[in-house]
Amino acid sequence: MSEKIRIAIVGYGNLGRGVEQQINLCNDMELVAIFSRRKIESKTGCPVYEMEKMKEFKKQVDVAILCGGSATDLPQQGPQVAKFFNTVDSFDTHAKIKDYLKSMNISSLNSEKVSIISVGWDPGLFSISRLYMESILPDGSTYTFWGPGVSQGHSDAIRRISGVIDAVQYTIPKDESIELVRKGTNPELLPIDKHFRLCYVVAEDSANKEIIENEIVNMPNYFDEYETEVHFISKEELQTNHKKMPHGGFVIRSGKTGDEKQVMEFSLKLESNPLFTASVLLAYARAAYRLHEEKKYGAKTVLDIPPVLLSEKPYEEHLKNIL
Amino acid sequence: MSEKIRIAIVGYGNLGRGVEQQINLCNDMELVAIFSRRKIESKTGCPVYEMEKMKEFKKQVDVAILCGGSATDLPQQGPQVAKFFNTVDSFDTHAKIKDYLKSMNISSLNSEKVSIISVGWDPGLFSISRLYMESILPDGSTYTFWGPGVSQGHSDAIRRISGVIDAVQYTIPKDESIELVRKGTNPELLPIDKHFRLCYVVAEDSANKEIIENEIVNMPNYFDEYETEVHFISKEELQTNHKKMPHGGFVIRSGKTGDEKQVMEFSLKLESNPLFTASVLLAYARAAYRLHEEKKYGAKTVLDIPPVLLSEKPYEEHLKNIL
Repeated sequence: MSEKIRIAIVGYGNLGRGVEQQINLCNDMELVAIFSRRKIESKTGCPVYEMEKMKEFKKQVDVAILCGGSATDLPQQGPQVAKFFNTVDSFDTHAKIKDYLKSMNISSLNSEKVSIISVGWDPGLFSISRLYMESILPDGSTYTFWGPGVSQGHSDAIRRISGVIDAVQYTIPKDESIELVRKGTNPELLPIDKHFRLCYVVAEDSANKEIIENEIVNMPNYFDEYETEVHFISKEELQTNHKKMPHGGFVIRSGKTGDEKQVMEFSLKLESNPLFTASVLLAYARAAYRLHEEKKYGAKTVLDIPPVLLSEKPYEEHLKNIL
Repeated sequence: MSEKIRIAIVGYGNLGRGVEQQINLCNDMELVAIFSRRKIESKTGCPVYEMEKMKEFKKQVDVAILCGGSATDLPQQGPQVAKFFNTVDSFDTHAKIKDYLKSMNISSLNSEKVSIISVGWDPGLFSISRLYMESILPDGSTYTFWGPGVSQGHSDAIRRISGVIDAVQYTIPKDESIELVRKGTNPELLPIDKHFRLCYVVAEDSANKEIIENEIVNMPNYFDEYETEVHFISKEELQTNHKKMPHGGFVIRSGKTGDEKQVMEFSLKLESNPLFTASVLLAYARAAYRLHEEKKYGAKTVLDIPPVLLSEKPYEEHLKNIL
């Protein structure tokens, strides 16, 4: 049997812990190190090191899975880590992907490593779906719906309001719009037609709830273009009923080939967003390792990766069971 | 502007005519020749040549799209055509894919060309979906449902029964089973649970309908393991109501990450099976052309092809609009 792919986790939050858990399903991989800014113990007993120790592991780690946040961690960390290891990450600031790809590319070309960026489901599997669909049905429109699920960005935005202790925001796609799109009627949909926003908020006792609600529903970019419903609940209720992280969504292409309607759809229904994203990252870690073996250095996105590189199984089996 | 990819169609049935129609949506391609065994005129005025003329076009054609049948045409034709051109085809005899890939690989390596086999939706896009899903969620089960749509194989099987003039068989997936799978309950499903078979049959006046019906519902491999409904109708009704070729289906992976259910789904709802398959073939013709430019000779399947190679648009646009 060939040697296992040696994986390191960089950043030990929800996503990092997800990778630690899910790697057990990958028979061709082993977790050798976790790098964290915090002094912590890992769940599985995998040794945890300070970030600064990373360079000492150049020969012990094949692929580092970057589990930090896109806002502040990855733009800094990514190019640093790519000096030492092949990397995969779930960079998801859509507007900055181009710049991030560029800086990752410079770093990984220099170190003769492979970096795959923006791996996850959106960006990630949804991006791949949009590309396949648009390439196959050039005459058509693509619609992306998110949810039902928790949006961290919107939840955070509510938490920043004065008087708010904690909050969870669910993005809920509107079924009637999804049905319209599935019928191939090619509707023009405004934000308010596509998603509904449901907020559970814990406020300070002294806070004026009317003012908070007003501030939420009128918040520019986040809520003002949507129907939003706000529920004030207790800390305990939030803790008990709203601390899971479900998510999902739909990519639908409604296209035409002459007179005929042709509809393609990809969807996800996830009970745990971080555990699913961790699973996607692990599959792409395998691809990064293989591309490095083929000396295809530099930074890539999911759009560049042949599907077959994600699978642990031999090609023979695909010919028999997958095709 | 760069030169267009020069396409030839080999075989001028439903699929070939579909490619001829859909190539208009590909701004980077032009149709330069149709090869057919029959003496016919093309719909668009594209010149039609005898199969034997093919070798004279070695320098005028970049990619040949093979539109013959998998049973008898492709196993012969494929390796022949791959001597002269890059090829794509929709070879769909699952059990023989391995042998076909092998013979196409020998031929295209010899000629320094690229062949992409088994392009379409199943095998094809459904195969890709199964691979992505299984690689990302190793702990789970994949379910494929087909239809609602016309199965050519089953329709042909009915037509071979003595006393039958014509027939159309619709494969209809069972909604209640799809719903079970979507819920992530991982049900064990028998053929009878997954699909229902609906047959419209035109019989000779003198034929015994009871005998025909009996022969259909008990036909081994095709019908005996299913619920089958047989309707006898007139030639005119068949012609008016059942000569469209809709199809589609669902690939669903119901997986787990520890305790959490994670469900992935890809589906197609097609008003025209041949026009959709033609569209897939054209996107992969682009990929074949590009792989040939990169000198990646030999035969491949859709599992080997990076998604980005299917798109006409520049990478910059993907970074902005797709990721």
